[in-house]
Amino acid sequence: MPPIPNLAPDIDLATRLFATLREKTFDGVGITRDAYGPREQLAHDIVRAEAEVLGLEIQVDGAGNMLMTLPGADRTLKRIVLGSHLDSVPQGGNYDGAAGVLAGLATVAGIKQAGLVPARDVTVIAIRAEEAGAWFPVSYPGSNAALGRLPESALALRRLDTGRTLEDHMRESGFSPDYVRAGTAVLGPENTAAYLELHIEQGPLLEAEQIPLGIVTGIPGSRRLRAARVLGEYNHSGTTPRRFRADAAIALAELAYRLDEFWADLESQGHTLVVTFCVLATTEEAGFTKIPGEARFQLDVRSINRASLDAVYDEMARLIASIEARRNVRFELGVETGSQAAPMDPLLQSGLAAAAQALGVPQRALQSGAGHDAAAFAQAGIPSAMMFVRNQNGSHNPHEEMRMEDFAAATSVMQRWVVDFT
Amino acid sequence: MPPIPNLAPDIDLATRLFATLREKTFDGVGITRDAYGPREQLAHDIVRAEAEVLGLEIQVDGAGNMLMTLPGADRTLKRIVLGSHLDSVPQGGNYDGAAGVLAGLATVAGIKQAGLVPARDVTVIAIRAEEAGAWFPVSYPGSNAALGRLPESALALRRLDTGRTLEDHMRESGFSPDYVRAGTAVLGPENTAAYLELHIEQGPLLEAEQIPLGIVTGIPGSRRLRAARVLGEYNHSGTTPRRFRADAAIALAELAYRLDEFWADLESQGHTLVVTFCVLATTEEAGFTKIPGEARFQLDVRSINRASLDAVYDEMARLIASIEARRNVRFELGVETGSQAAPMDPLLQSGLAAAAQALGVPQRALQSGAGHDAAAFAQAGIPSAMMFVRNQNGSHNPHEEMRMEDFAAATSVMQRWVVDFT
Repeated sequence: MPPIPNLAPDIDLATRLFATLREKTFDGVGITRDAYGPREQLAHDIVRAEAEVLGLEIQVDGAGNMLMTLPGADRTLKRIVLGSHLDSVPQGGNYDGAAGVLAGLATVAGIKQAGLVPARDVTVIAIRAEEAGAWFPVSYPGSNAALGRLPESALALRRLDTGRTLEDHMRESGFSPDYVRAGTAVLGPENTAAYLELHIEQGPLLEAEQIPLGIVTGIPGSRRLRAARVLGEYNHSGTTPRRFRADAAIALAELAYRLDEFWADLESQGHTLVVTFCVLATTEEAGFTKIPGEARFQLDVRSINRASLDAVYDEMARLIASIEARRNVRFELGVETGSQAAPMDPLLQSGLAAAAQALGVPQRALQSGAGHDAAAFAQAGIPSAMMFVRNQNGSHNPHEEMRMEDFAAATSVMQRWVVDFT
Repeated sequence: MPPIPNLAPDIDLATRLFATLREKTFDGVGITRDAYGPREQLAHDIVRAEAEVLGLEIQVDGAGNMLMTLPGADRTLKRIVLGSHLDSVPQGGNYDGAAGVLAGLATVAGIKQAGLVPARDVTVIAIRAEEAGAWFPVSYPGSNAALGRLPESALALRRLDTGRTLEDHMRESGFSPDYVRAGTAVLGPENTAAYLELHIEQGPLLEAEQIPLGIVTGIPGSRRLRAARVLGEYNHSGTTPRRFRADAAIALAELAYRLDEFWADLESQGHTLVVTFCVLATTEEAGFTKIPGEARFQLDVRSINRASLDAVYDEMARLIASIEARRNVRFELGVETGSQAAPMDPLLQSGLAAAAQALGVPQRALQSGAGHDAAAFAQAGIPSAMMFVRNQNGSHNPHEEMRMEDFAAATSVMQRWVVDFT
């Protein structure tokens, strides 16, 4: 691929918007942009003003997602969508979400400034309410609403901090819960050729390997236990010999340790997954000179491959049967929850890799660890892709970091991919 | 050993006293006899009345321990002491402690009723405040005071429920803290040939093996951690690959599981010990989608053999070094506490076994799991022994049980041993 003269993303625009967003949504400690609240709206207003200056066509859907479109040469072609979300966790960082929206704007601004007209419409989308763990306990309400796929039942869910429903928050923000009820879709496979989301990496891999760009292979599915228990028997730690014990803590320690060893084995066989005992604890009744009669745990297993998830749960079932037989305890796993994996589109991945190569930007393929709006687009049947920009201090904290030269390199790959998209 | 005509313990006396103690110190749920409080005193009053009827010489030392003596033929000989404590844990059972005092009374009552005069004085002792975990946080304040070995500093310790000092409680009960300060001893190696304590077994061994009587080989020492921690790093459970983790929970699970395996190995090599992680827990900060960055634990290791205790701690040090090197965590063990083991006197053990054989009472040797006043007597240099009576429902709870025929068999062994003691 030859270079294209005068084509570069408008990084000054992105730098200016990052600064304004930081200034206007700083909470004294970090960045807070509450979903369907005034600070998320502030971020939308800041971005909208810039899109208006650029002369983009602006549309806000019934759920408050903002679509900012640079018209293409043939408007009957399916569009390309670039974007991410503008909300943040409380006391979070400036980049998680916003980087994907600003990369989209910098991309279309640069195309326009180079005097190019893209072959098809390019829409930058600013999505609502992606941070499910912080605000509304449902995955991707904003993007799913744009895709006409948010269940009506989600409207009754309450924001974790205010206790008020998504419906109330939507209405108060000037949007329309009826749009959700009607299942109206502004985007779908019938009008969208591809969705591309740039996001800071939330893990340490790219930084550790000194690679600025990751091309995401998929967003993992999960199998989860949030309220699992081990039941044994409380007894005196001095007077109860080993063979009379029903020690819930040691039973759980054995399960955790051996499942962790099994994870290492799976990895050495080429599986990619994570296995985490997020909570592993004796209960409040435990105390000195007692053998623990009860313990509880939370388990989070994630992988792109269903077979890897199932391998862990199958092994857990074998271990539990063995431990129950030997240790005189009983496991109660409680309700299992989880989600389906969302593989990223292979053609888009190779297109991005080709663009990176053309520009000399080092990249590697990697799996996402967390969920992203791109999962909603992929599950709606739209070919989807993600790029991760390396990041120095994790995410969901005020120290979240990203070097602007890495952001510029990734955005130039996004822009080249857009221009080359056929 | 030939049978001795008409010699039997006065089990009716013991049965009557058990019933009175239960009636007078029932708290609505279980038995409460608070150390240096009105309900312990009530128990002493009940026992004293019976001793007076029996015509025993009664002496109460400055710390409130009551000595009830049947004079021997030669009063210059060192005496035999039989006894245990009369306090109980809150909402405990009727037998823990009291059984040893009533066995002593039934023994001397039966000797007197048979018209025998023992070779030497036989003293039944009702000891104060043995339940350190429930009342005053110091081991054996009553028996150590009788032995002149209670440190003056113990007087300042506060009762766990009232918050008032041991000195206040002693004074209010009519006893003399100055007796403790002076280090006066009513009992010691110079005037006591042997101490024998009967107690319900607090573990399940005798019941499981259907043996009524245990002859105790020793009271274990301990090495203990009450505030140990593992420090790792909190990270996102989805986005942090295995090799970047510093998971405190899995590090602790590995230590607990592997130390438990090591315990099993030691037992198979003939060591006798118990190893208990009484608390094993991630902290309150843990939660879903987080890798635990901190965990805490309590460890209680007990054995008669110092070498067994040390073997566990040596192995723990090796495991911790290995885990720290592999898992990027740090262990902080905090302050170690513990106690010295108290072996029971071998000659007394064989004397008790001979008496049991003469009477056809099945017995087996076993270790104590918990601490007892006999440890204080042994540490003071007095040859000491213990007998355990099998018990159906553990101790320190209202359901504590003991069959009176087992008590009678054990008490007959005590009595025969007293009569045969040379």
